[in-house]
Amino acid sequence: MNTKIQVTVWNEFRHEKSNPKVASIYPEGMHTTIANFLGKEADYELRTATLDEPEHGLDGEVLSHTDVLIWWGHMAHGEVSDAIVEKVKTRVLEGMGLIVLHSGHYAKIFKALLGTSCSLKWRESTDKERLWNTMPSHPILQGIGDYFEIPQEEMYGEPFGIPQPDEQLLISWFTGGEVFRSGATWTRGHGKIFYFRPGHETYPTYHQAEVQKIITNAVRWARPNVCIPDNCPNSPALEPLPEDPEADNRPTIGHK
Amino acid sequence: MNTKIQVTVWNEFRHEKSNPKVASIYPEGMHTTIANFLGKEADYELRTATLDEPEHGLDGEVLSHTDVLIWWGHMAHGEVSDAIVEKVKTRVLEGMGLIVLHSGHYAKIFKALLGTSCSLKWRESTDKERLWNTMPSHPILQGIGDYFEIPQEEMYGEPFGIPQPDEQLLISWFTGGEVFRSGATWTRGHGKIFYFRPGHETYPTYHQAEVQKIITNAVRWARPNVCIPDNCPNSPALEPLPEDPEADNRPTIGHK
Amino acid sequence: MNTKIQVTVWNEFRHEKSNPKVASIYPEGMHTTIANFLGKEADYELRTATLDEPEHGLDGEVLSHTDVLIWWGHMAHGEVSDAIVEKVKTRVLEGMGLIVLHSGHYAKIFKALLGTSCSLKWRESTDKERLWNTMPSHPILQGIGDYFEIPQEEMYGEPFGIPQPDEQLLISWFTGGEVFRSGATWTRGHGKIFYFRPGHETYPTYHQAEVQKIITNAVRWARPNVCIPDNCPNSPALEPLPEDPEADNRPTIGHK
Amino acid sequence: MNTKIQVTVWNEFRHEKSNPKVASIYPEGMHTTIANFLGKEADYELRTATLDEPEHGLDGEVLSHTDVLIWWGHMAHGEVSDAIVEKVKTRVLEGMGLIVLHSGHYAKIFKALLGTSCSLKWRESTDKERLWNTMPSHPILQGIGDYFEIPQEEMYGEPFGIPQPDEQLLISWFTGGEVFRSGATWTRGHGKIFYFRPGHETYPTYHQAEVQKIITNAVRWARPNVCIPDNCPNSPALEPLPEDPEADNRPTIGHK
Repeated sequence: MNTKIQVTVWNEFRHEKSNPKVASIYPEGMHTTIANFLGKEADYELRTATLDEPEHGLDGEVLSHTDVLIWWGHMAHGEVSDAIVEKVKTRVLEGMGLIVLHSGHYAKIFKALLGTSCSLKWRESTDKERLWNTMPSHPILQGIGDYFEIPQEEMYGEPFGIPQPDEQLLISWFTGGEVFRSGATWTRGHGKIFYFRPGHETYPTYHQAEVQKIITNAVRWARPNVCIPDNCPNSPALEPLPEDPEADNRPTIGHK
Repeated sequence: MNTKIQVTVWNEFRHEKSNPKVASIYPEGMHTTIANFLGKEADYELRTATLDEPEHGLDGEVLSHTDVLIWWGHMAHGEVSDAIVEKVKTRVLEGMGLIVLHSGHYAKIFKALLGTSCSLKWRESTDKERLWNTMPSHPILQGIGDYFEIPQEEMYGEPFGIPQPDEQLLISWFTGGEVFRSGATWTRGHGKIFYFRPGHETYPTYHQAEVQKIITNAVRWARPNVCIPDNCPNSPALEPLPEDPEADNRPTIGHK
Repeated sequence: MNTKIQVTVWNEFRHEKSNPKVASIYPEGMHTTIANFLGKEADYELRTATLDEPEHGLDGEVLSHTDVLIWWGHMAHGEVSDAIVEKVKTRVLEGMGLIVLHSGHYAKIFKALLGTSCSLKWRESTDKERLWNTMPSHPILQGIGDYFEIPQEEMYGEPFGIPQPDEQLLISWFTGGEVFRSGATWTRGHGKIFYFRPGHETYPTYHQAEVQKIITNAVRWARPNVCIPDNCPNSPALEPLPEDPEADNRPTIGHK
Repeated sequence: MNTKIQVTVWNEFRHEKSNPKVASIYPEGMHTTIANFLGKEADYELRTATLDEPEHGLDGEVLSHTDVLIWWGHMAHGEVSDAIVEKVKTRVLEGMGLIVLHSGHYAKIFKALLGTSCSLKWRESTDKERLWNTMPSHPILQGIGDYFEIPQEEMYGEPFGIPQPDEQLLISWFTGGEVFRSGATWTRGHGKIFYFRPGHETYPTYHQAEVQKIITNAVRWARPNVCIPDNCPNSPALEPLPEDPEADNRPTIGHK
């Protein structure tokens, strides 16, 4: 029996093919960079999947063997099949962990699970980002101090169109004057969700130690305790019920 | 200018046409009963809408003039058009209040906003339901004491597949041995959502004073403060930014 | 019967007496400045109270007639009597609203209600503060746009030692590189609590329009719906109970 | 180095000495029963402490070596020293886990951390309690099915005077017609808190397998990730600040 944590890193994998700068930072794609640093954990087993594979690399076999799914998408959110999104959602609700990165704030799967717009302010520029640790006791932030900095990143600013997070982990300061809730968690069904802001494709963000540490911690935090398929059972009484006062003239037409 | 709270009561309106018992309780449909008791409030202006009307009675004109939408559906959730659901969701996110009743737990609009299964246990039987007030200071529960009882209701039982509520208002006790979170609120975007459990079609639940009081209170609580359409703006810096160290060899391909 | 909202503004009122700069900004004390702008609301009735009055100006008569209490303290938190803190806490739990300003983060009453350290980073300096609106639909933020700025303020930085807020309203950006959850709400018992960060005594913060607007809104938001004194009742069964199998040999010693 | 989870079980230990029925169920005290079943876990190291020991058995040495503290108290809450309560609170805020059982809802330490009344309805009677699992994915509920029953227990009923829980784990149904939030969690500072309702002293509740399972799981869930003492640092700027426009005529009186 395989007791390792099964991690699938999903990447749109388009910028890397069309933009030489991105290709120079992530020659084999961001998914490979992420899988490589996660693969250093002895108890993680890594797989990758990308948009242009059949079923986006997320067929039933892959999904049912994924404990934690990591998601990066941006320019092609609209090309992700609604049927696959529905299958991923089903897996999260039955227990699979989900880590959504950066521009994945607009991924269909993230919006479907949160139920909100997930909109924000943004600017591609020369901002420095400083991420403040607002919950130092959280498993995802172990090894991270009071704050860390990313020398250059795309700016994301408030208001961020999310439901109030279950746990507020990181808040970013940007040179240009904005703030952003950069790390936050939610539970949906039996699955745990972590959103982590950094990771613009034109910067080497996923090569940075603190970013790698947080994603690595998040995988362990998000692993499922259960796999409980959805059901809505007709359920017999556990205690005696009164007689039905209208038992004789009750309509016989069922309607559930 | 109309400063009344514009309320639209939406009802599937099918059980009333096919089931004589339901028709005897709600001769003009549940929506009419609900609109009638709400209409006694001097500051409420009532409209109704039903599944079989064009656009389910929820065209753009109606939706844009609705402050609070009440939703009852059951046997025909699947017949509600996805396009209408999307429009209703957009209105909630920009500020419209939404009150979801009873079997509306499985309405497309409720599941789309909460992001979860919204499944539960259920039993049509002779249970008495006693609803306990867990937040007596809440505006929705003013005029309700420690608890109230509904002589006979369908049972809904935990676990209820919802995200942790923002506010936990009511918990039900059922004769047959179950419990249920019968009143709860969430914020999604700029809109407020209230789920209220009672209202099985074969019982005269919406004729009961406490039930009417709670729905009446909920309308006032759910009225919007704002109407803010979704946007995701490119946003100029408010503070001076550093020079771009790579300004000369930056790729020119835009990607947002 | 008085149907106005009864507001009591409490101020430590010490800096104004010892520091000429503070005295020049608030010649009659911060409480008077705050009471004056709140007093412009036709439905607010204002009272002030200060540390050096008997019972700190908060005797039973005053407290029982206060709907919303505003609290500013800093250099003399330790001089506030524990007995008065206990009385204020009792009033909040039974329904009174509480608005805690700036250095009141370390007031005994705030720490007693939140249960945490309420610690933070701080710096008296030349920072500009920009407060971002993270919940534009909230009643407290009506009339406030995406953000507003305070030209010079003391810096407060994360981590802020508070329980996860019920509602996250404002996040501050500071020139020096920090962020802070500057507006947040909690419910404790039947009372509503709003913490609002700005208001260092050496700056004219409470003369600024946006700051006045937020405090004015907060009073209306925090007004009580109920006044429910604490009780812990022995409560008879509402449904038939089984016979006690050990009725005959049950010990007679009471223990509650 | 000791890498086991250090657990201290604290018990008031009075009922066992004065009430023969309680003594017959827990001859060596509830703390011993609880320590014995927890001691079966290979990675737990157990200690007990009781009210009548010096410093209630909770001197600095014990507290600083406790990862998770379990608390049962009832008839003598008032005899617990405020100084010890303050030390326990400090330890929770810096990271120690706390599990509060049954009548501990009224313990000074629980009320000090939650900030509310913690009041409830109650009845010593012949009720059966059925605890419904509202969050089956939670680590504390692993091995517990949809529900479990305790044949006879004291009734606790809503409203329960607690802040909205971070996680809602269990809701109880009682024969007599009440419901109660029987399992819930909060974070305070860096520490995790779990309240678990069952455990009236005249019933053999802590001998029941499901109850033992939940407390055993809760210890592992509550163990600290960090130990962070409180501080409130004066913090230098990380970014350049503007000149102070009033540098020359700034008052020199410090006030923090």
